[in-house]
Amino acid sequence: MGMTMTQKILAAHAGLPEVKAGQLIEADLDLVLGNDITTPVAIREMQKLNKQDVFNKDKIALVMDHFIPNKDIKSAENCKCVREFACRQDVTNYFDVGEMGIEHALLPEKGLTVAGDCIIGADSHTCTYGALGAFSTGVGSTDMAAGMATGKAWFKVPSAMKFNIVGKPSKWVSGKDVILHIIGMIGVDGALYKSMEFVGDGIRNLSMDDRFTIANMAIEAGGKNGIFPVDEKAIAYMKEHSEREYKIYEADPDAEYDEEYTIDLSTLKSTVSFPHLPENTRTIDEITEPVEIDQVVIGSCTNGRMDDLRAAAEILKGRKVKKGLRCIVIPGTQKIYMDAMDEGLLKIFIEAGAVVSTPTCGPCLGGYMGILAAGERCVSTTNRNFVGRMGHVESEVYLASPAVAAASAVTGRISAPAELGL
Amino acid sequence: MGMTMTQKILAAHAGLPEVKAGQLIEADLDLVLGNDITTPVAIREMQKLNKQDVFNKDKIALVMDHFIPNKDIKSAENCKCVREFACRQDVTNYFDVGEMGIEHALLPEKGLTVAGDCIIGADSHTCTYGALGAFSTGVGSTDMAAGMATGKAWFKVPSAMKFNIVGKPSKWVSGKDVILHIIGMIGVDGALYKSMEFVGDGIRNLSMDDRFTIANMAIEAGGKNGIFPVDEKAIAYMKEHSEREYKIYEADPDAEYDEEYTIDLSTLKSTVSFPHLPENTRTIDEITEPVEIDQVVIGSCTNGRMDDLRAAAEILKGRKVKKGLRCIVIPGTQKIYMDAMDEGLLKIFIEAGAVVSTPTCGPCLGGYMGILAAGERCVSTTNRNFVGRMGHVESEVYLASPAVAAASAVTGRISAPAELGL
Repeated sequence: MGMTMTQKILAAHAGLPEVKAGQLIEADLDLVLGNDITTPVAIREMQKLNKQDVFNKDKIALVMDHFIPNKDIKSAENCKCVREFACRQDVTNYFDVGEMGIEHALLPEKGLTVAGDCIIGADSHTCTYGALGAFSTGVGSTDMAAGMATGKAWFKVPSAMKFNIVGKPSKWVSGKDVILHIIGMIGVDGALYKSMEFVGDGIRNLSMDDRFTIANMAIEAGGKNGIFPVDEKAIAYMKEHSEREYKIYEADPDAEYDEEYTIDLSTLKSTVSFPHLPENTRTIDEITEPVEIDQVVIGSCTNGRMDDLRAAAEILKGRKVKKGLRCIVIPGTQKIYMDAMDEGLLKIFIEAGAVVSTPTCGPCLGGYMGILAAGERCVSTTNRNFVGRMGHVESEVYLASPAVAAASAVTGRISAPAELGL
Repeated sequence: MGMTMTQKILAAHAGLPEVKAGQLIEADLDLVLGNDITTPVAIREMQKLNKQDVFNKDKIALVMDHFIPNKDIKSAENCKCVREFACRQDVTNYFDVGEMGIEHALLPEKGLTVAGDCIIGADSHTCTYGALGAFSTGVGSTDMAAGMATGKAWFKVPSAMKFNIVGKPSKWVSGKDVILHIIGMIGVDGALYKSMEFVGDGIRNLSMDDRFTIANMAIEAGGKNGIFPVDEKAIAYMKEHSEREYKIYEADPDAEYDEEYTIDLSTLKSTVSFPHLPENTRTIDEITEPVEIDQVVIGSCTNGRMDDLRAAAEILKGRKVKKGLRCIVIPGTQKIYMDAMDEGLLKIFIEAGAVVSTPTCGPCLGGYMGILAAGERCVSTTNRNFVGRMGHVESEVYLASPAVAAASAVTGRISAPAELGL
């Protein structure tokens, strides 16, 4: 029986000719990632394991992104702990204020994640790098500690689900709508511990930024990882951003999938996840009652890339954020911030009455930079709308694409760009 | 006996031909200011006084600036409280995310403060507007509540100190150095409950931004207010920003001053306040031991204006922030942010490895956006370096001009621009 793309990557990293679903393997890691919340815990775990040194100073990425510039004394102490560790261990890829970015936007941009890699990160959205044809998954801080010390991790080889992508999306339908549609269809545990393997002709109609968004939210369906085949767009992206060698793995024709779905992009509509689960999706035209909102957030590891900012800017250009509504735009990295400034996007946002934040995870996880009070509602391009995720337990988060978020910022209620004649 | 400039403004607003130092008067207010920390308290005080309505919806300014975009649930609830009050009372000048700015940078820019005004604000740096020839002072939330309800406030008429400004400052000496020099000279209680009256030929060599900085820190010498004569530069500023009528008051020739000082700008040097009081000043060449630093903050109501950003950019252009140091630049208002973007300053900052924040008081008061861990040192263009002001009680803040702050960001220790050959 053949192997899926994920299984092939895992087999190669375990030094095995073949693996099958359910098998326990120990795999070599190409990258171990941590952030300012999880790394201090991992450092303490390493100390408990009596491990002093990292296995390879070039294969660790420590990204300060959740609470920097330091939100409070606690986050200052956490960053200091990681900074001192990175300095002591001479960690090559330590990112702090200045060269900062949201980890899952930053690492591909810095060329640290390429096709064929086996990556763990102490952050649930580490699955993002599957967009480049890597196996990449979120782990806890203890696994991160073991990974930093040994360069290896244990995995149960996941079984797979196949998502056959066909067709071409209409103007305002993006990767976010694709993944929200899928999560709405299969549920937040629909892919529990499975690899979500995206295949099909329609993928060529998805930009790399669309694919990052889709892979990023695989975890929101419970997936172990999400993964895309490596096509010309992916190769072009890697050539632009990385000097590392990549390796392309392809699923065997007789690979086994627990389930198969076909997603016709041409029939998809803008999709919104209602509180309090990503699976509570409605297409924009199923929303018949007006949903008034207080805040819009455009950013995060899910939707803080150039495609996202361009879509939002196209809608906000020459328009105004509705009075009384806060619209917060968060470029994913300093490079994205600069590119958006150079393209005039930041100016469009500010002229429209939005604010542009430093790159940060901030509001997505209720950290800072846009926390909600009781009774407030936010349309957000982030990835989770659990109870209290962005602030008060009586607040509400509606997940949407940058296009819907921007249109909603103008009208003050959940809206399609079409409402603005776009 | 004649009156000082401050006394003349107070007399006019009390409807009296004359007032003298120590006299208790009730004055009409042209503006009552509050922010996201102090206004919720004032609103509750109004309720206790059984006062429902503001005296004049055009003469209240409510500026959300300390913790927005909302830092946490508490700040979200505070902003919500103020927003609802502003909406209910139809307050004309309510500033939230989008049209935001640090109150003391924002109000003059919005034309809400002009010469001859009598202004109170529930924020200690309300004295800033003295740069325009207004009487302006910080009060508590209870006084703010009474002011909002009645449009009046009780004052004890302050006695005065005269600062005779002469000469022209050298290239990197700015308003910040002038006021730090003065505070170093007279101490943090040197002007306790007195008006600091700046006069003299040298004032024409100070930009409006310099004057805002100087008036802003009058409170750091204990002053009731700081005030400048209204010259052509002040008139040009008001004409550019305001449609309100201004009124010029001049001190009588025989006005009484408790003390008089002469400040020769041409002899001033870049000045730094060492921990933990603004009066602990040293000129840059008195700093003989290297002071290594972890963070630089350029911004705040003291130094977040265009002159400040231009000085910092001139130094950071083509240079790099020292590795391991965090440099946070915070434009004072959205307009300043936009102007700095248009002038290419933001690009210079980011290329140098700094980050550019949304306008906020943030780190100055240990709020967010750059809080210090134990043992960390920051050179900051803000106004207070008290123990724990920017974070941990074991952290240290060194107050300086934007030029010194920027030069220090490059070298990683407190430095004059001259160290960079500038």
